[in-house]
Amino acid sequence: MHPKNSFGVDCPVARTLECIGEWWSILILRDAFQGLTRFDQFEKSLGIAPNILSRRLAHLTETGLFERRRYSTRPPRHEYVLTAKGRDLFPVIAAILAFGNRHMAPQGETVLLAERATERPVAPIMVDAQSLMPLTLQNVALIAGPRATPRTFERLAMLRRLRADASVTKG
Amino acid sequence: MHPKNSFGVDCPVARTLECIGEWWSILILRDAFQGLTRFDQFEKSLGIAPNILSRRLAHLTETGLFERRRYSTRPPRHEYVLTAKGRDLFPVIAAILAFGNRHMAPQGETVLLAERATERPVAPIMVDAQSLMPLTLQNVALIAGPRATPRTFERLAMLRRLRADASVTKG
Repeated sequence: MHPKNSFGVDCPVARTLECIGEWWSILILRDAFQGLTRFDQFEKSLGIAPNILSRRLAHLTETGLFERRRYSTRPPRHEYVLTAKGRDLFPVIAAILAFGNRHMAPQGETVLLAERATERPVAPIMVDAQSLMPLTLQNVALIAGPRATPRTFERLAMLRRLRADASVTKG
Repeated sequence: MHPKNSFGVDCPVARTLECIGEWWSILILRDAFQGLTRFDQFEKSLGIAPNILSRRLAHLTETGLFERRRYSTRPPRHEYVLTAKGRDLFPVIAAILAFGNRHMAPQGETVLLAERATERPVAPIMVDAQSLMPLTLQNVALIAGPRATPRTFERLAMLRRLRADASVTKG
């Protein structure tokens, strides 16, 4: 992430992007969620240059999304297994997939997410874990958390001003 | 997206990443979901070079996530307003934020997602819209969609082999 990003250090979205690393890594994670673990599997699936793949896997291991495990001693070979933290990115990839099927598949979907036991297609939506209320742009807002910094409060105040201006403009 | 990506054209995840464009654009969308619309607002929030911001906004407009609207004639000024398609990326950003608060805020959260009306913090989870069953890596799988290509079937067969191998290894 760019060091000049002024809401970077305070922002859980920016910190997550730093943890993932870059664009390619989302496709590496996509493949890991489908069961790929080995360098040559990722390389074949992604058509990615080996040096870039090495770097991305090293980054994803450093940030705790993958655990690197030796699966063969001679020759020494490692696999990259999702950690609990890595598995917690599943909703991100599921949300990206749902968007893709909704908007980027005008001719129909190539793949669908389905209930594993029955193969019934599912439609992923975001809800609040407690109330099961669907979360939409209209019914949620950001509020200060327990570790809000002066910059967080400044930003939240700016967002309130923007919303107030927008309602004035709309009359 | 890299043209060599062998599961690119068939994959709704890869197509969505192409639509978003690149890493920075996720933070532009984050800001748009919070009500930012103007070039100078994004520039200030992101600390991004103007030429890069221009390019990203042009891409997001071309791919239909933003609509560019003139809000002042003299001088001519435009704002970038999320389209319905753009708003449909909200679950992606909400999922990234939820991950960040869970894993990337060891000292406590700076911001929380809350119900707008009551400011009660919410915990975003992914469920199936119909059954409200929480979607996890364990209970979902990819299946062929109505427009599956030979490459899709090849890939799904490969994934089934991988899962079979994994159960043999563990078994």
